Amino acid sequence: MIENQAKFIQYIEEHKKDLVKTLAEAVAIPSVSGDASYRPQVRKMGEWLEKQFQEAGAKTSTHELGKQTLDGKEIDLPPVVYAQIGDDSSKKTVLVYGHYDVQPALKSDGWNTEPFKLEEDEKTGCLYGRGSTDDKGPILGWLYVLLAHKSLGIPLPVNLKFCFEGMEESGSVGLEDFVAKEAKGLFSGVDAVCISDNYWLGTVKPCVTHGLRGIAYFKLEIKGPARDLHSGVFGGMVHEPMTDLIKIMSSFVSPEGKILIPGINEQVAELTDKERKVYDEMDFSISDVDNATGSSTTVSDHKPDVLMARMRYPSLSLHGVEGAFAEPGSKTVIPARVVGKFSIRLVPDMQPQKVVDAVKKHVEEQFKQLNSKNTMNISADPPGKPWLADPNHWNYEAAFKATEDIYGVKPDLTREGGSIPITLTFADKLDKNVLLLPMGRSDDGAHSTNEKLDTSNYVKGTELLGSYLYEVSAITN
Amino acid sequence: MIENQAKFIQYIEEHKKDLVKTLAEAVAIPSVSGDASYRPQVRKMGEWLEKQFQEAGAKTSTHELGKQTLDGKEIDLPPVVYAQIGDDSSKKTVLVYGHYDVQPALKSDGWNTEPFKLEEDEKTGCLYGRGSTDDKGPILGWLYVLLAHKSLGIPLPVNLKFCFEGMEESGSVGLEDFVAKEAKGLFSGVDAVCISDNYWLGTVKPCVTHGLRGIAYFKLEIKGPARDLHSGVFGGMVHEPMTDLIKIMSSFVSPEGKILIPGINEQVAELTDKERKVYDEMDFSISDVDNATGSSTTVSDHKPDVLMARMRYPSLSLHGVEGAFAEPGSKTVIPARVVGKFSIRLVPDMQPQKVVDAVKKHVEEQFKQLNSKNTMNISADPPGKPWLADPNHWNYEAAFKATEDIYGVKPDLTREGGSIPITLTFADKLDKNVLLLPMGRSDDGAHSTNEKLDTSNYVKGTELLGSYLYEVSAITN
Repeated sequence: MIENQAKFIQYIEEHKKDLVKTLAEAVAIPSVSGDASYRPQVRKMGEWLEKQFQEAGAKTSTHELGKQTLDGKEIDLPPVVYAQIGDDSSKKTVLVYGHYDVQPALKSDGWNTEPFKLEEDEKTGCLYGRGSTDDKGPILGWLYVLLAHKSLGIPLPVNLKFCFEGMEESGSVGLEDFVAKEAKGLFSGVDAVCISDNYWLGTVKPCVTHGLRGIAYFKLEIKGPARDLHSGVFGGMVHEPMTDLIKIMSSFVSPEGKILIPGINEQVAELTDKERKVYDEMDFSISDVDNATGSSTTVSDHKPDVLMARMRYPSLSLHGVEGAFAEPGSKTVIPARVVGKFSIRLVPDMQPQKVVDAVKKHVEEQFKQLNSKNTMNISADPPGKPWLADPNHWNYEAAFKATEDIYGVKPDLTREGGSIPITLTFADKLDKNVLLLPMGRSDDGAHSTNEKLDTSNYVKGTELLGSYLYEVSAITN
Repeated sequence: MIENQAKFIQYIEEHKKDLVKTLAEAVAIPSVSGDASYRPQVRKMGEWLEKQFQEAGAKTSTHELGKQTLDGKEIDLPPVVYAQIGDDSSKKTVLVYGHYDVQPALKSDGWNTEPFKLEEDEKTGCLYGRGSTDDKGPILGWLYVLLAHKSLGIPLPVNLKFCFEGMEESGSVGLEDFVAKEAKGLFSGVDAVCISDNYWLGTVKPCVTHGLRGIAYFKLEIKGPARDLHSGVFGGMVHEPMTDLIKIMSSFVSPEGKILIPGINEQVAELTDKERKVYDEMDFSISDVDNATGSSTTVSDHKPDVLMARMRYPSLSLHGVEGAFAEPGSKTVIPARVVGKFSIRLVPDMQPQKVVDAVKKHVEEQFKQLNSKNTMNISADPPGKPWLADPNHWNYEAAFKATEDIYGVKPDLTREGGSIPITLTFADKLDKNVLLLPMGRSDDGAHSTNEKLDTSNYVKGTELLGSYLYEVSAITN
């Protein structure tokens, strides 16, 4: 390990409290991108972030992405926050991506603490709060790489460019066009891309990730009466939207997770013997899933099947119903308009448009069979393609070495079940290798209640990100 | 029409504004019985009501019914408010029942106005607000019968006893035992019972009602992981509670409203030719339903089929899902615990316990077929039996005559789709004839958004209730 890298690591070890304090400031801004009423908070978060990177020595700028219609209102999209530090032509240039928006969260969803107030629990060693691990912890890790080098008065080993968006949890609207436009502008001269926005496979061993599933998110609306009805007065007389919706939603997926919509599974790349072997050998056990979910509910007891269900096969989840009775207690209502929410995770070689077409065709056929007098509408959010990168690139070599520097182990090379559509955009538009270098653990609960980041992952993860830059600069190629 | 009755009617005509003002006071108290956090408001409503009847000259008392567990808390049940006026042994004694609790309502459900602020719209001629028609308008109608006679200094034509409960919208917990206990106490000497808590068949012609459907309300819980999960990270790996729930809920009822659970339809009394003829002849058209629902979604275009679907056949409605994603927007969550809410309306000769048993058996079989590792629990709220009364009783004769006094037409004799379980309790425990004499119209939207009571129905309905008492006293039998 070279001297500057060691100094950097020591600095981070000595500034744990500052790291936590800054994360608390970030979590306190409820930058929920999926709800129009929170949009001012998303913009506030972008402004806060730009200021932090300015103070850490970066040149920054914000870039508006136009407007969108959300919850029936036309509102401004959150801007891209761009930052840049170093322009030494003898150094490699790494582009870092992160996002400053978060998933929705209400204490009443089942949180033990206020979701937008970071709580450090010394017993569990965890930092609880919405966005702690997804993705505010990682972007502040990068911030502290800059702050450490500035404080220590030592140069960064590479040139860095940062692209932070505020719409990742809501389809990254506007970002693909922005990246395409700036490929030869802001993003010119980039040698590789690094994204820290996913998780270890388990809770002990680090990993680097070279594949992601895509996503297609659907909204299935059934409308009947002009207003909600009393089920005593009208029950039996009218076609009830909930009956139609539940019937159609029941035709999508089996209890074991097999997608039943024709034309979906047919698109999946065939499993080779060589690929199958990778999953047999991966450091993982069913108990890792059980620990993360707090249950024994895996669809199979066979390790490679469960791993492949996450990494190389599609999945379909039913998220909920908007417009129906969702409170505790009993209410005898016939809801007038209900919207079923569901999504499909996409893998190679699935084509998003072909998936959307197959779902629409299936839903239309199912609805037709009901002979209902209600009206149906099926729509899809902009879908995200799956992604696979070449792990034999120096970008991955640097990540492997940095992980050994910090954690003393060779990381697993994994594919992820989640979706970061922009990963593929960077790979396609910049034509550079993209690396996913996660900070958090599998049980962090991103998108769920009681989201957390282990303090140790935050600190060591920050050291990992900095060390990765040293290993990038050390590789001659 | 005798002189006192005419004076009473004139008084009501001259005091419309007072009637509306008093209703506004009542609607402003959000006496939602189905949500533990509103319980203090339900009790407040009971206190307010007792005070009104005291000031109108009645002797009143409140009667505690014990405790219940709701939303995980043990709380006091709302009391019965009892009132009594007149004890002239030469007069008949009528027992009046009403309820002072209401269904839940949030402006965000789709109300055009604040649900707990009564809004008088002169254009539509309606009074909008939760509880306006169900059942605060009718109980204040009775109040004004008393106030009018007190102000005019004329005696009431009958002795009156009132039983007002605060749990009707939540299963009338505790009331059945109370009525049984007081049958020979507070309720001794009662000659007949009158309840104004249902609706006209349409929007033009009044009716009196001699039948009601019962209800069995079910909560189907599926639990899997200990917390909500990210559908990218875990989608495909685990048995998802929503998948199981939706599958089971899809097996309950056909799009045309046919109940598919074995052992339910088999319990329904057979249709006779004579009964069928009643429905053929009833003053009703499909457009009445269409106007009330604001849609053309009846399960049949054939009038008697639609009427029988409401009055003499059971129905099953899917009300919603607790615990799943119910907001606008997109959220990629796998909900950890979901509770499907549904209910079945019961008709003669269905036995509530046999219905509950059939549903539980069916759900258990369905869940077993899923081979899911999640856990399932099915529970039922205390069910309410269906009810049918003899319409050839003087109680009904008085109601027919009073309707002709006020509206100038002979009312339809109907059965209702809704459930007022306590109707049957009064019939059984007191062994007296029970009459349903509605105030509101079919399109009032009880239990739904923008619940209303036409001002004219409120005023004429109050005149009807008083006139009914005069007609009761006029009948010699």
